Amino acid sequence: MKAFVYIGTSLDGFIARTNGDIDWLVQFANEEAIQSYHEFISGIDAIVIGRGTFETVLGFPTWPYDKPVFVVSTSLKELPEAVKNKATILSLDPNAILQQLSLQGFSRIYIDGGKLIQSFLKADLVNELIISKAPILIGSGRALFGEMKHELEFEHTRTFIQSNGLVRSFYVRKR
Amino acid sequence: MKAFVYIGTSLDGFIARTNGDIDWLVQFANEEAIQSYHEFISGIDAIVIGRGTFETVLGFPTWPYDKPVFVVSTSLKELPEAVKNKATILSLDPNAILQQLSLQGFSRIYIDGGKLIQSFLKADLVNELIISKAPILIGSGRALFGEMKHELEFEHTRTFIQSNGLVRSFYVRKR
Repeated sequence: MKAFVYIGTSLDGFIARTNGDIDWLVQFANEEAIQSYHEFISGIDAIVIGRGTFETVLGFPTWPYDKPVFVVSTSLKELPEAVKNKATILSLDPNAILQQLSLQGFSRIYIDGGKLIQSFLKADLVNELIISKAPILIGSGRALFGEMKHELEFEHTRTFIQSNGLVRSFYVRKR
Repeated sequence: MKAFVYIGTSLDGFIARTNGDIDWLVQFANEEAIQSYHEFISGIDAIVIGRGTFETVLGFPTWPYDKPVFVVSTSLKELPEAVKNKATILSLDPNAILQQLSLQGFSRIYIDGGKLIQSFLKADLVNELIISKAPILIGSGRALFGEMKHELEFEHTRTFIQSNGLVRSFYVRKR
């Protein structure tokens, strides 16, 4: 069972502006970025997103995922009609989520959404961390990392530099 | 007149633990890191440090700098006897510091110390940002970046990967 984080941040560590905008990041989404994401997602068998990310995705013109999607929420009881056959609600903590997905035969899980990622890091359940750093300080916003009481050591495995200056580094949890 | 920042951070953006410790970073200071620092510092003609960094440096067995050093402080009136001929106190804001150093014939300034770096970024006076990222989340500590009301775009110029996984990226301010 492996959990992956694949995310873009500003140089100052934000994944979105305070209002959720990622315009500053999207400008770096060139062909290299799209290809990299496809390579990543081809190795994934389930996607777990937080409630916030789910709300964002609902605003997209089409459903962006072609893998089983699980929405983590304690408050959401039912999915909107349009996406009912596209996602499943999970009201579990990170450890239980991975156990549940393992029982269902999944083994490579993409964790997406700021708060969800922080909860998986706090539980030390992230195996690979892939961070794409945009060469811009946005000054304020939603931070990728939150306070933790413990350290987590990773091994750097590779870094790719996009032609537009995005630096994508791959890290594997050292255990 | 160019101001440079050359600093190491954790993956979660801290430059020191809350108590000031940088043990987690020092473990990555191999030959490559030392050579890189020497290359950087050879292109610098003055070093400007904050009061906190100055206090830290006073605890070192020997004075670590071989360039003119300026200590930025509004409260410090006099330097300790042992380092009186090694540094100069400046009680000025970032713009005035650069003007003053320019008048003295300096043109490539190394800005060091967390709060000082933040004040130079807030004034948009940093021309080059060189960040060495250690592959570890330390969970809490002193952050490199602080809140800013404006964005700052940089151009990524190069990235070096140390054999021990430290990722050093060079950024130049885009104007």
